[in-house]
Amino acid sequence: VTLVASLRDIVGETHVLVDPDLRAPYETDWTRRFTGTARCVVRPASTDEVAAVVRVCAAAGAPIVVQGGNTGLVNGGVPASGSEVLLSLARLRDLEPVDVLEAQVTAGAGVTLEALQAHARAAGLDFGVDLAARSAATVGGLVATNAGGVRVLRYGSMRHQVTGLEAVLADGTVISRLTGLAKDNTGYDLTQLLAGSEGTLGIITRVRLRLVPPLPARAVALIGLSSTGDALSVLARARRLPGLAAAEVCYASGVSLVRTYAGLGAPFSEDFPVYLLVELAGGSDPTDELLEFLGGCEEIGDATVASDAAGRTKLWAYREAHTEAISAAGVPVKLDVSVPLAALADLVAELPTTVEKVAPGARTILFGHLNEGNLHVNILDAGASGVELTDAVLNLVAGYRGSISSEHGVGRAKARWLALSRTPAEIAAMRRIKAALDPNGLLNPGVLLIDAE
Amino acid sequence: VTLVASLRDIVGETHVLVDPDLRAPYETDWTRRFTGTARCVVRPASTDEVAAVVRVCAAAGAPIVVQGGNTGLVNGGVPASGSEVLLSLARLRDLEPVDVLEAQVTAGAGVTLEALQAHARAAGLDFGVDLAARSAATVGGLVATNAGGVRVLRYGSMRHQVTGLEAVLADGTVISRLTGLAKDNTGYDLTQLLAGSEGTLGIITRVRLRLVPPLPARAVALIGLSSTGDALSVLARARRLPGLAAAEVCYASGVSLVRTYAGLGAPFSEDFPVYLLVELAGGSDPTDELLEFLGGCEEIGDATVASDAAGRTKLWAYREAHTEAISAAGVPVKLDVSVPLAALADLVAELPTTVEKVAPGARTILFGHLNEGNLHVNILDAGASGVELTDAVLNLVAGYRGSISSEHGVGRAKARWLALSRTPAEIAAMRRIKAALDPNGLLNPGVLLIDAE
Repeated sequence: VTLVASLRDIVGETHVLVDPDLRAPYETDWTRRFTGTARCVVRPASTDEVAAVVRVCAAAGAPIVVQGGNTGLVNGGVPASGSEVLLSLARLRDLEPVDVLEAQVTAGAGVTLEALQAHARAAGLDFGVDLAARSAATVGGLVATNAGGVRVLRYGSMRHQVTGLEAVLADGTVISRLTGLAKDNTGYDLTQLLAGSEGTLGIITRVRLRLVPPLPARAVALIGLSSTGDALSVLARARRLPGLAAAEVCYASGVSLVRTYAGLGAPFSEDFPVYLLVELAGGSDPTDELLEFLGGCEEIGDATVASDAAGRTKLWAYREAHTEAISAAGVPVKLDVSVPLAALADLVAELPTTVEKVAPGARTILFGHLNEGNLHVNILDAGASGVELTDAVLNLVAGYRGSISSEHGVGRAKARWLALSRTPAEIAAMRRIKAALDPNGLLNPGVLLIDAE
Repeated sequence: VTLVASLRDIVGETHVLVDPDLRAPYETDWTRRFTGTARCVVRPASTDEVAAVVRVCAAAGAPIVVQGGNTGLVNGGVPASGSEVLLSLARLRDLEPVDVLEAQVTAGAGVTLEALQAHARAAGLDFGVDLAARSAATVGGLVATNAGGVRVLRYGSMRHQVTGLEAVLADGTVISRLTGLAKDNTGYDLTQLLAGSEGTLGIITRVRLRLVPPLPARAVALIGLSSTGDALSVLARARRLPGLAAAEVCYASGVSLVRTYAGLGAPFSEDFPVYLLVELAGGSDPTDELLEFLGGCEEIGDATVASDAAGRTKLWAYREAHTEAISAAGVPVKLDVSVPLAALADLVAELPTTVEKVAPGARTILFGHLNEGNLHVNILDAGASGVELTDAVLNLVAGYRGSISSEHGVGRAKARWLALSRTPAEIAAMRRIKAALDPNGLLNPGVLLIDAE
């Protein structure tokens, strides 16, 4: 019996894709930067089917690459070696009724973020994570990569929403922990170990997620400033506001690109080097609180405030249209870093010089989540210097004791730079955990931990 | 060279205690329920000294039991076998200046919760965890046991405050991760794996902690209700209030005990079976919001509200004096369980019958943290039936898919009941992780995972 025949016995004839045309949508990531060949694509419909697939693959010695919504950015969800079985979790789309009493819900790994959000809102609640890929990104992938987004400041990242999960380990055993107890001090937190492990320790099939009260009243300020340091001063004070819901930063070069791309007018009569977007949210209108706060900030060059939905969307667009505007301008080298806040202004100041040395004439566009010291570094017109540029920027970040991947994860794309952010002792501990749970290296080989040389 | 001589070379003569009188305060827990004999007590003063101590113990094959403030409740921090070196972290008392920009601070494992809170408040911030043992409980122990308390509803438990840590592994290597990056997706979250692992995977020597904005304005309501179900209905609506800071439940039997012990008057002209304490906190006075909320709750039998410090303390006393009042009334069997909220009313209803069957005439006092479905079960006048009673209650809890230890941890005291809360697959995964990081079982033997029979 061949592997494909065994897999078809488990998931049914039509859910094992061998034909290259049928495999193709799974074999290339959405940015089209990463592509590979899978032995086949298998689409199980339940945790039990996933477990059976894993057992069959383990018996055949066939490595597995796990895929959710295929919206990753670090080459962690498409095949690399040609020998992998690509396990798509897209059919695990169960969405249980919202448990309003617990303010929690259990969702299959294949449920999209958008479907989850709609489901929560229909029950009068909300979900604490939001990001641009919401229509395709799936719950399983969001947990496996500990996704971030614009609401981390208030609710934490994806791992902080997870109160339990179900997963298939490399030997086909299922660990299931979906009761969603808010407190449970009975041993190692396997849920948090699997969250952010990028599919290398187990395959997350279902998750239990906390929901948050909706905050219907919002006010947004777009603020023009003369430096990153001033933006940080404003943030430090804004943190005292109980309603603070977002603090996003962007820069003149990006805002100019966005204005051209989206046909937006200038936010202010004067141009500023730095723009800070601050959002307050609450049960009652926070506009007065926001205006009072802005009045007390001497750093502010200019500011505009919106409380109605249309006005808020317009102000958010200066920040949110960055990704699309950059894509429209070319194929960027995309990095995603964070540094301690005390080092952020220095990093921003040094980045252009570092880039210029490696890729003269390249354009560096920065934007990100100020509270977490997290900058998305997009470099346009870098030519063929991608790897060299990545190396230079990530080394600069490491010099500030920063993270080479703040939100996106490591995948295969960043694995060679892991040692810039983790010490040899940490990497050794990770390897021991990997070896303990997946001794044959079946799950996502080459992702996160690469073979020592 | 003896082990003691080697240890004295590392930490100095006076910090290795061999004399039984000097060892004694370390060998018995504060409740005086658990006691043992240590080979010696060693008091290192730095991470490097801890690492050297671990290496020497590993070479000698001497197991280590780790102790913080010795305020644990599950026999996890005193020796059991007589062969252990007791490693006290009390001298790791470094407290770095508060990083106001990051709203974080780095503290040595031996810093008390009280010292941490005072340090944070002096910098205009606050710490998100508070509990009764604050004057003795240490930061290292709080993280190692993932302590809870009355503020979990708002800020999460201890693990949610930790942005990084430094720890010594069983082979004496040090993992250090103290930059405190709010987002860092570069591999396995060793910090969260060690948090709550009760010293069995590594010895936490320093931690990086997030601080929270102070919420100076508070209002407290004590509410009389006729059932646990009604308390849950009020809670479900209270969760929509952005200022909700605490929701604590207690019952008539406990309130009666507290009134006698503390000489408190009756909170209401009428007695109620269930009492719910709700606290709102914010930047501005939340009293009106609280009154409006209470006006909309039909379940409420009676309610009293306090906004000034003295009045709030008085209302809190009905809940907070429970532990002392119970201790004054006898030596209780102490359990600490949580169940899904949907099962809580049933658990409360069944507990007296379950207790009565095993220990006729015993008194069951319940109080706890309603939002987490967490009840502290204290049973007075149980006679010699402690183990049998524990077994009966924990089995009842497990029947509702609850946790046999919501806050206190497992230690040695609850290890035999671990399988009531964790599946064989989970326990197997835990054992593999333990074996990977501590193959010789050097750290806290007998705690959490006991040898399979």
